[in-house]
Amino acid sequence: MITLASDFGEPYPAAMKGVLLSRTDARLVDVAHNLPRQEPRTAAFWLRETLPWFPPAVHLAVIDPGVGTDRNALVVRAGDSALVGPDNGVLMPPARGLGYPDPEAFAIDPGHEEFPATGGEGSTFDGRDVFAPAAAAVHEAGVEEVGEIEWLSPVDDPEELRFPEPDLRGREASGEVLVVDRFGNAITNVPGSVLEDRFGEEVAVNGTAVPAERSYAGVEPGHRLATVGSHGNVELAVNAGRGDEAFGVGVGSEVTISY
Amino acid sequence: MITLASDFGEPYPAAMKGVLLSRTDARLVDVAHNLPRQEPRTAAFWLRETLPWFPPAVHLAVIDPGVGTDRNALVVRAGDSALVGPDNGVLMPPARGLGYPDPEAFAIDPGHEEFPATGGEGSTFDGRDVFAPAAAAVHEAGVEEVGEIEWLSPVDDPEELRFPEPDLRGREASGEVLVVDRFGNAITNVPGSVLEDRFGEEVAVNGTAVPAERSYAGVEPGHRLATVGSHGNVELAVNAGRGDEAFGVGVGSEVTISY
Amino acid sequence: MITLASDFGEPYPAAMKGVLLSRTDARLVDVAHNLPRQEPRTAAFWLRETLPWFPPAVHLAVIDPGVGTDRNALVVRAGDSALVGPDNGVLMPPARGLGYPDPEAFAIDPGHEEFPATGGEGSTFDGRDVFAPAAAAVHEAGVEEVGEIEWLSPVDDPEELRFPEPDLRGREASGEVLVVDRFGNAITNVPGSVLEDRFGEEVAVNGTAVPAERSYAGVEPGHRLATVGSHGNVELAVNAGRGDEAFGVGVGSEVTISY
Repeated sequence: MITLASDFGEPYPAAMKGVLLSRTDARLVDVAHNLPRQEPRTAAFWLRETLPWFPPAVHLAVIDPGVGTDRNALVVRAGDSALVGPDNGVLMPPARGLGYPDPEAFAIDPGHEEFPATGGEGSTFDGRDVFAPAAAAVHEAGVEEVGEIEWLSPVDDPEELRFPEPDLRGREASGEVLVVDRFGNAITNVPGSVLEDRFGEEVAVNGTAVPAERSYAGVEPGHRLATVGSHGNVELAVNAGRGDEAFGVGVGSEVTISY
Repeated sequence: MITLASDFGEPYPAAMKGVLLSRTDARLVDVAHNLPRQEPRTAAFWLRETLPWFPPAVHLAVIDPGVGTDRNALVVRAGDSALVGPDNGVLMPPARGLGYPDPEAFAIDPGHEEFPATGGEGSTFDGRDVFAPAAAAVHEAGVEEVGEIEWLSPVDDPEELRFPEPDLRGREASGEVLVVDRFGNAITNVPGSVLEDRFGEEVAVNGTAVPAERSYAGVEPGHRLATVGSHGNVELAVNAGRGDEAFGVGVGSEVTISY
Repeated sequence: MITLASDFGEPYPAAMKGVLLSRTDARLVDVAHNLPRQEPRTAAFWLRETLPWFPPAVHLAVIDPGVGTDRNALVVRAGDSALVGPDNGVLMPPARGLGYPDPEAFAIDPGHEEFPATGGEGSTFDGRDVFAPAAAAVHEAGVEEVGEIEWLSPVDDPEELRFPEPDLRGREASGEVLVVDRFGNAITNVPGSVLEDRFGEEVAVNGTAVPAERSYAGVEPGHRLATVGSHGNVELAVNAGRGDEAFGVGVGSEVTISY
């Protein structure tokens, strides 16, 4: 199984699918192709939340603002799964999310004959010309054989991308908004456990009292709430509305919750 | 075969796919994931139009504004197909559209060990934690075995959702706009048969004369027409434009057609 | 393998998938369903760029502003692949892009019993009622048997759609913008070879000096550049921004590059 994620929209991912299907009979599964453009951080968050639900697979993740520069192209092994994408940190949180705190990274040699479309040089579409052929080859070889592939070489210090840790003291948690989803839910790095014994009561979010609820439907439509999202973190939301607007927050905004 | 429909956009459906693929080798087919947010009625319309074209399948339909409340989670059997989703009416019109006027409904026990991710409690993402595992299990057991599944119990009175019937008298039909598609075509509940012998002539829509045409191309680009859409109902449209704007209608608007 | 491309958005493509899956076990691959509405020209460009990356397949391409008129419905054979769609030119550039300068075109008889949903007449959804069943039948018969299918008859003069040729003289190339992608990159018909020995230097685009770079990242974010896109043509772009706006161009705009 090979999953595909990118910020390409349409129709660029289809070229990647064509390359994959020319080289493997693997099942292909689209994860997302409308991830926010050129935001490895947001993509890393969503892939960390999503990929652990899959059985072992090769996960292609092409969010690549540095395409055409000398940044490495990577294969990262996390147990019996592998991630393939640019060396900008996007692969690391999902690799750890798969349960491997120290994933092994390997750099792809894009000049190798395995990648004929690059002409041995740069490409403006490494998703098609480097990452898709690499993902197909890793799938065909088997993830356990990654260390034996001749166009891969170990990398000791892949780019890291880590999400900030929240600050928990007493009955106050300080953190920040990690991402805003398409519904406007502002997803923080504050663990949902802080709301655990507060459901049905009010907590203070940046000084304003709002109800803590198990579900959006715990308040009337249009009303604010703090809840625990499907990722396990505190989410600032509005039932049938946009939490980001109602709370006046965006990615990176500081959030203090007193409970 | 398992089909997937939701109002989730990206990347939440991928988590459902991961759960499904961890439990079944079934073919997965995306029906739609950008259905209008939290509108079971619109989703029911589109699923009623779309699902009958499929071979027997398990159809997952997660448009679920009541997630986290005590609304039931359902499996609805319609012949050799099954629908899985919330008990808010969204499953019933498509179940009937599959040719079964009295579909059988069963409530899922989300506290059963088949659904470990719920922790026996509520979830803000039942699509991933309840509906996807249920759909996989129904697929693996076979739709004909639904009555034997221990975490399912019959429900006598599932939530209903019925589309209004048009009022046809003499040469006048009164109805309403059921949905507006992405092209701006306003799809009414008036049966296309009222235009049958009027193609090429004019009819009156809310008092204004417009041509009745077999296809959008029957009028010049930018011009209004009444036509019969692929669903068999009268559609108010503009060739290469938006019918909803030109006719000044939206979902629920009254439409009277004199023909 | 059957690929699907359309300008339908959601959920209309699902009805085509249902029809296909009722008639064939072929693998289905979505190429794009949000192609610009009713623009066969743009679709032809993207399909020409994308389809050659696939292994032999039946390619369904439904961008069909003339649906319901008497325009033909076509099957076009290009070697061991076939394209199925309306006779408005959309199939021809991708057929040639597959390496067949003289693709063979066949007209579908939509009144044949192979297409029961048309009722022998017109349809407002030929994608579902004509093209999908035709694609499934061609897949099942095998592309090499297209000439033997009784509801197909050869067409000598299918609609053509050709992209304008650029004018290259001395160190100046005049052409036009063929399409703008979702990132705002303005893709011209000027071959990338004109920039080949200019990377790292400036060229003049419509009289204004901009750097020629191998990749978007060759300039600072927000800055303009001329580059060679993944399709091999000159692209007017802005790193992490919209090239169409910065250069003041759109589809059809004249572009003169002095290099």
